[in-house]
Amino acid sequence: MSTQPDPSRGAAVKATDRAHVFHSWSAQALIDPLAVAGAEGSYFWDHDGNRYLDFSSQLVNTNIGHQHPKVVAAVREQAARLCTIAPGFAVDVRGEAARLIAERTPGDLDKVFFTNGGAEAVENAVRMARLHTGRTKVFSAYRSYHGATAAAINLTGDPRRWPSDTASAGVVHFWAPFLYRSPFHAETEEQECERALRHLEDVLVFEGPQTVAAIVLETVPGTAGIMVPPPGYLPGVRKLCDKYGVVLILDEVMAGFGRTGRWFAADHWDVVPDLLTFAKGVNSGYVPLGGVAISAEIAATFDRRPYPGGLTYSGHPLACAAAVATIGAMAEEGIVENAARIGEEVLGPGLRELAERHPSVGEVRGTGVFWALELVRDRATREPLVPYNASGEDNAPMAAFTAACRAAGLWPFVNMNRTHAVPPCTVTETEAKDGLALLDEALTVADAYTG
Amino acid sequence: MSTQPDPSRGAAVKATDRAHVFHSWSAQALIDPLAVAGAEGSYFWDHDGNRYLDFSSQLVNTNIGHQHPKVVAAVREQAARLCTIAPGFAVDVRGEAARLIAERTPGDLDKVFFTNGGAEAVENAVRMARLHTGRTKVFSAYRSYHGATAAAINLTGDPRRWPSDTASAGVVHFWAPFLYRSPFHAETEEQECERALRHLEDVLVFEGPQTVAAIVLETVPGTAGIMVPPPGYLPGVRKLCDKYGVVLILDEVMAGFGRTGRWFAADHWDVVPDLLTFAKGVNSGYVPLGGVAISAEIAATFDRRPYPGGLTYSGHPLACAAAVATIGAMAEEGIVENAARIGEEVLGPGLRELAERHPSVGEVRGTGVFWALELVRDRATREPLVPYNASGEDNAPMAAFTAACRAAGLWPFVNMNRTHAVPPCTVTETEAKDGLALLDEALTVADAYTG
Ligand SMILES: Cc1ncc(COP(=O)(O)O)c(C=O)c1O
Ligand SMILES: Cc1ncc(COP(=O)(O)O)c(C=O)c1O
Repeated sequence: MSTQPDPSRGAAVKATDRAHVFHSWSAQALIDPLAVAGAEGSYFWDHDGNRYLDFSSQLVNTNIGHQHPKVVAAVREQAARLCTIAPGFAVDVRGEAARLIAERTPGDLDKVFFTNGGAEAVENAVRMARLHTGRTKVFSAYRSYHGATAAAINLTGDPRRWPSDTASAGVVHFWAPFLYRSPFHAETEEQECERALRHLEDVLVFEGPQTVAAIVLETVPGTAGIMVPPPGYLPGVRKLCDKYGVVLILDEVMAGFGRTGRWFAADHWDVVPDLLTFAKGVNSGYVPLGGVAISAEIAATFDRRPYPGGLTYSGHPLACAAAVATIGAMAEEGIVENAARIGEEVLGPGLRELAERHPSVGEVRGTGVFWALELVRDRATREPLVPYNASGEDNAPMAAFTAACRAAGLWPFVNMNRTHAVPPCTVTETEAKDGLALLDEALTVADAYTG
Repeated sequence: MSTQPDPSRGAAVKATDRAHVFHSWSAQALIDPLAVAGAEGSYFWDHDGNRYLDFSSQLVNTNIGHQHPKVVAAVREQAARLCTIAPGFAVDVRGEAARLIAERTPGDLDKVFFTNGGAEAVENAVRMARLHTGRTKVFSAYRSYHGATAAAINLTGDPRRWPSDTASAGVVHFWAPFLYRSPFHAETEEQECERALRHLEDVLVFEGPQTVAAIVLETVPGTAGIMVPPPGYLPGVRKLCDKYGVVLILDEVMAGFGRTGRWFAADHWDVVPDLLTFAKGVNSGYVPLGGVAISAEIAATFDRRPYPGGLTYSGHPLACAAAVATIGAMAEEGIVENAARIGEEVLGPGLRELAERHPSVGEVRGTGVFWALELVRDRATREPLVPYNASGEDNAPMAAFTAACRAAGLWPFVNMNRTHAVPPCTVTETEAKDGLALLDEALTVADAYTG
């Protein structure tokens, strides 16, 4: 169901883009954006008639695939009814979206503060934690991404933080578990878990726990590499938070809403945070939406004392209508279960099989439709295929791998020395297998840089 | 064209809201949100059959009124075509929205970085200015609002900043001109202008101009009180910025896209900023959208050096389609001209006439569909009707005035001791006159607190 190819239209679209659109995370003169003509399900296509299997879910947000008919219909219907209304009013779809989210979030996280996206969700969660505790410092992990507004970028533990860093923002970075590149010289998962918890408690004690408002953690770190934590880690962090009166904020902007094969990644370990941030999968990004699910205790802090935060489009009706339809369709169509099954039966085994044959694959890790391949020069030393934060020539191997994927018709999600296999939660077995076959082709390009 | 009244539906909507929606800027247990059933043009209505003339444009964002048929149609059409695509791609509506915006922004502000809203626009403008200049400090005015993410709330010059203040964020607040409550003891507009510029230069010099990246200013401060600056002020600020190599960021999130009777408020004084932030009116908030229009010089800074900022929904197709349709309709239907005419012929004269008869009105100021009434206890002393940042009993007079407006069927925009008359730019002469009549009624309530 692609649109007719029309290369001259593609050229016109690109020319206008290059003249007027300033792109994120990019050197403007060095990019050549693909002009997209349309999308459906797990595919999108350009104006020249090239189709791509979307193994990136865009920025890991189209959990329900492109142009899901139920969500499209809901957006169209809501547009005809009521596009916008200020946050101060009560309106049916806003309440209904909040109710459906609260029904699925763990524990007593039953109130929802809506934002436009993930960064604003993190900003507000941090503000809530600081005001709830009366403390200032916030802990977050190296190897993390939490968004690009000031507080969120300061919390981020990847190089995107550096240009926007204001040292005094009260953020303390610690190391989370990652056995493959263990910061703790551990040799087993159990050891990694135990040492990571010990490290976190040590840093807490030396920073002064009574100065620490919150620990912010991606339940499963996403862009940073999909490091599924060892089973005891998050329960252990929860215990430390309880011990020291620190608010636990789990950032499920990327991991939430089906991505890991559960509604929320926290469900894998039955951990209940005090605040849970979400965006992306909540409505697959059909309309910008994010938010914070809030525990009864923290919500009560703002029962008689005004919560000092807001934004013009909090609980936007069109975005909420898309969330209602997305959550409804995910439940009706078993989309979360599909993500779990595809992970267990197709992607997990398939990627491990690729790893056996391709020397460039150092590790395969993930769950659901949330997988990372760690590409290395050498499996023994685990030297990454490209250095940390490489660009230009240093990054040539990953650039070549990315180009090979695209040439083969696969759109990968690439970060540093990793490629992530993160298709929509709706991906079919056939599509997942097609994606594995295309990855197989492209990995031969990465293999050429090994040894 | 209201929906049928249905009070039991209204009660159900409110119950779900109270159970699950956490509201911005509010003590959750002390609010009683109106349940809105629908909206059209300058009106919205609740489930009980009450209609309100929207003299707030929600949060001063529905410049084109509610449910404009051309914008609704464009959103519906785009939803059917392509709801979402990542920022890295080129896509027709994104380029077209950027082109239409660039066509209207002053000077060489020809590249557009899109965000979801106003706060993120300010965050990114500040980051661009800091990286462009290599300097850290940013100046902003007392009596201002720039959004609620960390950098934006630190720049804000109203009490909403206090709970989120991190002293070391590199922000320096100065006083902008406001003759009615002159920080400079001035008696004429010319004096106020000259002294305000002198003050700004003094603070610049004492902070060390070589440490200052940017001055951020609402072209016409909005929520803070619609203080239209004296004619020489913004040209004078532009000159100071040039003299000291400081980036001028004009925040037109509220003042832009027709609100002042021009496309941008800066057009009134032919001032060209280096960066211009927008949101709200760009698509009337039908889909969350904001952004930064960037000068050629600053854009070039990021030609070969990556711009280190972004967000998942930068240049969201649905939001851009709404912007294309909104800007198109505003141009075709003369909506900006309508705002100018209504201001000159109806609201300006009408509000001044009210001021003559109501002792509670201390000053009337504004332009286009952007007007403030400063309510006072005493015209001679200018004592505000309620103290700065009043709440509870202290705020009783403004609460009574607000209730009187609503009871009369007018939805006002109220901030501290002010009420703003900020209807859509599409407001008709009849509607504007109706609004004035309802204000006339409600002001008798405010009058009771004077003398
Ligand atoms: C875990 C996590 N948190 C926060 C964000 C920021 O979300 P947004 O880009 O919507 O601001 C992201 C975006 O990728 C994310 O992955
Ligand atoms: C001048 C100005 N700047 C920034 C903002 C923040 O915009 P948003 O609420 O979309 O984050 C506002 C919101 O009212 C505003 O009036």
